[in-house]
Formats: sequence, structure tokens, C-alpha cells
Amino acid sequence: MNKIEHIGIAVADLKSSGSLYEKLLNTTIYKLEEVHSEGVKTAFLQTGPNKIELLEATSADSPIAKFIEKKGEGIHHIAFEVEDILAEMARLKNEGFILLSDEPKPGADNKLVCFVHPKSAGGVLVELVQSV
Amino acid sequence: MNKIEHIGIAVADLKSSGSLYEKLLNTTIYKLEEVHSEGVKTAFLQTGPNKIELLEATSADSPIAKFIEKKGEGIHHIAFEVEDILAEMARLKNEGFILLSDEPKPGADNKLVCFVHPKSAGGVLVELVQSV
Repeated sequence: MNKIEHIGIAVADLKSSGSLYEKLLNTTIYKLEEVHSEGVKTAFLQTGPNKIELLEATSADSPIAKFIEKKGEGIHHIAFEVEDILAEMARLKNEGFILLSDEPKPGADNKLVCFVHPKSAGGVLVELVQSV
Repeated sequence: MNKIEHIGIAVADLKSSGSLYEKLLNTTIYKLEEVHSEGVKTAFLQTGPNKIELLEATSADSPIAKFIEKKGEGIHHIAFEVEDILAEMARLKNEGFILLSDEPKPGADNKLVCFVHPKSAGGVLVELVQSV
């Protein structure tokens, strides 16, 4: 795997948290995007070669709403850039990791993505990201 | 702030988790280090310009032991590289963020570090890291 593509952070309110993270990282949000299939609104900030993706739930049954209900706001997932997501999915499956989908899915920021189950990855929700 | 210097992940057993993350990231641990002042043993893996730092507690009152007791294994903190840690600490303090120390402290991997209280940073434990 290559660089950390982004860190996903679950927030209750994108507007107030967006302003907080702009101050923290000393930069401005460069993109807002809604991902209907995941039930989230996202905001992106750049830190060098990496991104921070803030995620606000748009419905009560969104995974982000459930995460905040259970654990509170905070780091939700870590995404790694891969060159060939299909090859990487096959490699991980072969190593015993559990994938949350059999096929890559369209994600935010014009990417193909696949998640690895945190139960198989030391409690960490890992996302694979391939640019398309 | 510059790139994500590393992501810190709390693990119960550095040996078994080290092997798991080597498989996950398809790379090998390049450094093991004990940080006595923090009560942790660490293992580092490289992913492009970023690092993954696995943290195992060496005593029951280590922050990592308490984290795992409360939340289980998983992502513990996110560290950003800064060029001038004193200037960055002053800037954050001025913006209303709460710092966990008044002075930078020596951290793993020959760095100067300072943590930002998660209560002031949206539930995320943020570390500033300056190379020395």
C-alpha cells in the first residue's frame, strides 16, 4: 500500500467542526461533497500529501450516525491509496482479512473504495482507495 | 501543518499485531523502540511518506493500557509534522486549543512532540511532531 490517502473523522455538525479543523490544521476546506449511498456529507482538508475527510451523517441509520452514538465524535477510519484495488482486495482476502464488499464501490472524491472489517484488522476500519 | 507524520494505533500485543499489520500493509516493521517516559513499546511501519506506529503499554498505568481498557484496540492518535513546534503550539493556544504540555517533549523516533487535548479537537487526540 502507498500513502495514507485520508483519515476519516466522524463529526456531529460539519459546519462547526469544519471551522474547528480549519483552525487546527491552519488551512481551509477545499471541497464539500455528499455521498448519498453512504448517507454522509463530507468536507476535505489537505495536509501535505494527505487529506482529512470530515463526515456528517445525513440520516439516522448512516454508519456515521451509529458510530457517533456508540463512540462519540472522533477518528472513524484510515484510508490507504492503492494502485490496483482488485489485486489488493485479492491479496488481503488471501491473507485472511474480511472485506466489507466483494466489489469496489464508488466513494467520495471520485475514487473506487473497499473497506476491511475492523474485526480482522485490530479494531481499525481500513479503507482501500484507488483513483479512477 | 504538513503531512500526517504517523497514525498511532493502540495494540494489546506488539508481536501478534506487528505481524497482522505487516500483512495488512504488505511491508515489514523497520524499527522497534521503547519510550520509557510514556510507558510504551512501539513498532513502526512505513506507507509511502507516512508511518504507522503500533503502541503496546509496558505498565498498567500507561495511557495506552487505559485507552485499550476503555475503548479496545484501535486508532489512538494522529500526528502531524510541523516545522516549528513552538510556533505551532503558540498558534494553537491562541486559537483556543488545549495543549497537554507547556513545552515540547522528547517522543519516539527522535522527535519533539506535543499533544492537543481531544476535548478541544473534536474527540481526536492530535500530536504535533518536529524532527530534531
